[in-house]
Amino acid sequence: MDMVSRRDFMRRSALLGAGLVGGAAMGAPRAGRPPNIVVIFADDLGYGDLSCLGHPTLHTPNLDRMAAEGMKLTQFYSAHSVCTPSRAALMTGRLPVRNGMCGNRRVLFPNSGGGLPTDEVTIASMLRPQGCQTACVGKWHLGHRRRFLPTSHGFDRYYGIPYSNDMRPCPILENETVVEEPANQDTLTARYTARCVDFIQDAGDDPFFLYYAQTFPHVPLFASRAFEETSLRGLYGDVVEELDWSVGVILDTLRRRGLAENTLVVFTSDNGPWLVMNERGGSAGLLRGGKGSTWEGGMREPAIAWWPGTIEAGSLSAEMSSTLDVLPTCAEISGAPLPEAKTLDGTSLMPILRGGEGSRSEMPYYRNDNLWAYRKGPWKIHYQTQMGYRSDHEDHDPPLLYHLEHDPSERLELGERRPDIRDEVDAAAQAHLAGVEKGEPQLGIPLPEGAKPGQIDV
Amino acid sequence: MDMVSRRDFMRRSALLGAGLVGGAAMGAPRAGRPPNIVVIFADDLGYGDLSCLGHPTLHTPNLDRMAAEGMKLTQFYSAHSVCTPSRAALMTGRLPVRNGMCGNRRVLFPNSGGGLPTDEVTIASMLRPQGCQTACVGKWHLGHRRRFLPTSHGFDRYYGIPYSNDMRPCPILENETVVEEPANQDTLTARYTARCVDFIQDAGDDPFFLYYAQTFPHVPLFASRAFEETSLRGLYGDVVEELDWSVGVILDTLRRRGLAENTLVVFTSDNGPWLVMNERGGSAGLLRGGKGSTWEGGMREPAIAWWPGTIEAGSLSAEMSSTLDVLPTCAEISGAPLPEAKTLDGTSLMPILRGGEGSRSEMPYYRNDNLWAYRKGPWKIHYQTQMGYRSDHEDHDPPLLYHLEHDPSERLELGERRPDIRDEVDAAAQAHLAGVEKGEPQLGIPLPEGAKPGQIDV
Repeated sequence: MDMVSRRDFMRRSALLGAGLVGGAAMGAPRAGRPPNIVVIFADDLGYGDLSCLGHPTLHTPNLDRMAAEGMKLTQFYSAHSVCTPSRAALMTGRLPVRNGMCGNRRVLFPNSGGGLPTDEVTIASMLRPQGCQTACVGKWHLGHRRRFLPTSHGFDRYYGIPYSNDMRPCPILENETVVEEPANQDTLTARYTARCVDFIQDAGDDPFFLYYAQTFPHVPLFASRAFEETSLRGLYGDVVEELDWSVGVILDTLRRRGLAENTLVVFTSDNGPWLVMNERGGSAGLLRGGKGSTWEGGMREPAIAWWPGTIEAGSLSAEMSSTLDVLPTCAEISGAPLPEAKTLDGTSLMPILRGGEGSRSEMPYYRNDNLWAYRKGPWKIHYQTQMGYRSDHEDHDPPLLYHLEHDPSERLELGERRPDIRDEVDAAAQAHLAGVEKGEPQLGIPLPEGAKPGQIDV
Repeated sequence: MDMVSRRDFMRRSALLGAGLVGGAAMGAPRAGRPPNIVVIFADDLGYGDLSCLGHPTLHTPNLDRMAAEGMKLTQFYSAHSVCTPSRAALMTGRLPVRNGMCGNRRVLFPNSGGGLPTDEVTIASMLRPQGCQTACVGKWHLGHRRRFLPTSHGFDRYYGIPYSNDMRPCPILENETVVEEPANQDTLTARYTARCVDFIQDAGDDPFFLYYAQTFPHVPLFASRAFEETSLRGLYGDVVEELDWSVGVILDTLRRRGLAENTLVVFTSDNGPWLVMNERGGSAGLLRGGKGSTWEGGMREPAIAWWPGTIEAGSLSAEMSSTLDVLPTCAEISGAPLPEAKTLDGTSLMPILRGGEGSRSEMPYYRNDNLWAYRKGPWKIHYQTQMGYRSDHEDHDPPLLYHLEHDPSERLELGERRPDIRDEVDAAAQAHLAGVEKGEPQLGIPLPEGAKPGQIDV
């Protein structure tokens, strides 16, 4: 039944979109020139933090418009519930457990010596040989030493902060050079936006890949003067509304340059809202839990895909999908060969974005480098649970069972009623684990002796 | 700051709407003929149960389109957290505590002898003297005895069930006559829809008021064969998606008859989702609590207003507003005088619907006939709380304090930090109470001796 009704969900969405905002042809990218790709990655933004996802006082007209012109993905996941592993997965299309980019230290810190291993292939290093210009603007958090920086991982340009904005020292880098320390965070979103626009303008006729990894709404929160105290949602709202403005500027730049129909833009977030920050943290909407948790609120993300003429305006998809699928999507539409030497964990989103079914039927939920939960079809089991990063965790034997499509808030445990399904999902999880070879842990590697925290050139 | 930023919220919404779906003139209704009014009232639908409010697997393309062509009201309240008092308030524009339509029995039952007092003025009885045709289709629940039925309260026609669909016996009435018992609920939505369409067709050139009070998604849940097992959200989803279809049929009928620009349609729900029903109950989205609770989830409702040409397409308003405001809105746009003999608790929504500010700055939250919580501006205090109808309640002295615009989920209690505000809201609540004269209790009145439960003609 699930497949039939999911198809129907799409079909009816597409009809609505066509009626409302104008039909869109399901076209392939223009021959001869691969499309541009823009990935906008918010930091700690929750599933419930957009107006078009039901927030009553956060106002996101640009993201709402992006959704009205594109597709909302309502079962889209990040690959981890915290920053560094989530970003590693987005960049490589690989579960962080495979390359050691997750572990008990959770994320990288200024005194970490590790980073994304140099033999990993990122979206940027995959696309550059295709003649694609590449830029990273924003927060990297995959290693601050020169060898791990964006410019060592396929990006022509980099402008941003090397790790989270609550870590000290927090500089701004231009490529591999510190140009400001400490970063003036008040104007960060405005400056990021200008850098993104410059890059799009500078690309001329070349295809480009822009990875815009926003610093916010990760705490501490800063908004430009123009957005200060303008939101009903308080400072958190000011910051998200400035992020929304920034997305609008980028989409407008694409439109004005006539690139809209040749550019795929994906907007999502690295993990769920940081609930323990109270009003400085976001909302997971109807989902349970937040950042740091393997409940849905920790890893299911707001997600919008926009590509006028290719993605039906005003469409919705409830197909299961992931940041792990972004690299294979980029490969498909650019014609770049997929990295061969490494195991990938995603598949292209294009069948979904063209209005059809996805091929993903399972989803692992890791905490640090342990599998805490697993989804197969609409069913999810939890071996262990924890609401956030600092609360107590609970073990579950037998695992808890939820039906995520009937009960997206994970309120109704069904294991006693359906032990057969629980066992089936458990078997799928064990089969997954048997196929995963854990990589060398990277997060615990110390800085070289004598190096200072945050030192780049070491 | 709140007024300035709320204005800004509207202004920016309006700009988006104009850009996206086409600008709309802010017109007055055509001279000479008052506009038609349609109120669609769902039963137990939650704040999070529409796609355009963030539900991931419930698909409501018609309501989403209604919102894209109209206005989403994000701080819109019903006047009570359960059925009978909420409906009494919608129909009369008066708090149920004023006319005894709330109390320890919560709602009316088949063995209740009371109903909406016959000296109350309903929207229908207010509009009928204006030459307006009036119909009630669906669940009434304001008294099943002939003297309390819709036809005794200003409606020319009535077709529907007299109380909730889980009460026995549950007949279908045509005006004051039982035409089916027990009601075949499988086809109820389809038949209601046909009745609504017939009424709109039959009205000819006369203005009309249609009150379409859906029976669902109140349990027990029934969907037509065409909707059975078609939703990803299970049976609850099937039922809500049929309701969504029904709304689409009504809006299409208005469009086809050329009445769209002369008809105000308001869609909302009577109270929050019935959470104890588990997967047969809905979702309050990011709001806390559900049906029966004075937490936001019990009384804040999904709300969409649609009037092409008068309400800006794709707009949002976070102005505080209520079902209590519907009667005064109907009076303003129809030119009917407001009922004079009774105290009203609402004001016209038209300033909000035209893109401006509302005049409502306070909101009482009653449970039974006691004031449990009170809102002033963005601040809410709770004297007592309870999650649903069957759980334990807690007293709070001093009352709990929340900032609903920064913290719509009521997670962060601020009373210790802001005792000054807590006292100010408390003073406003006490002033409100001093102005309320409680009416004679109606819900506990027994049937006349010898009458059978559900008997109409008595």
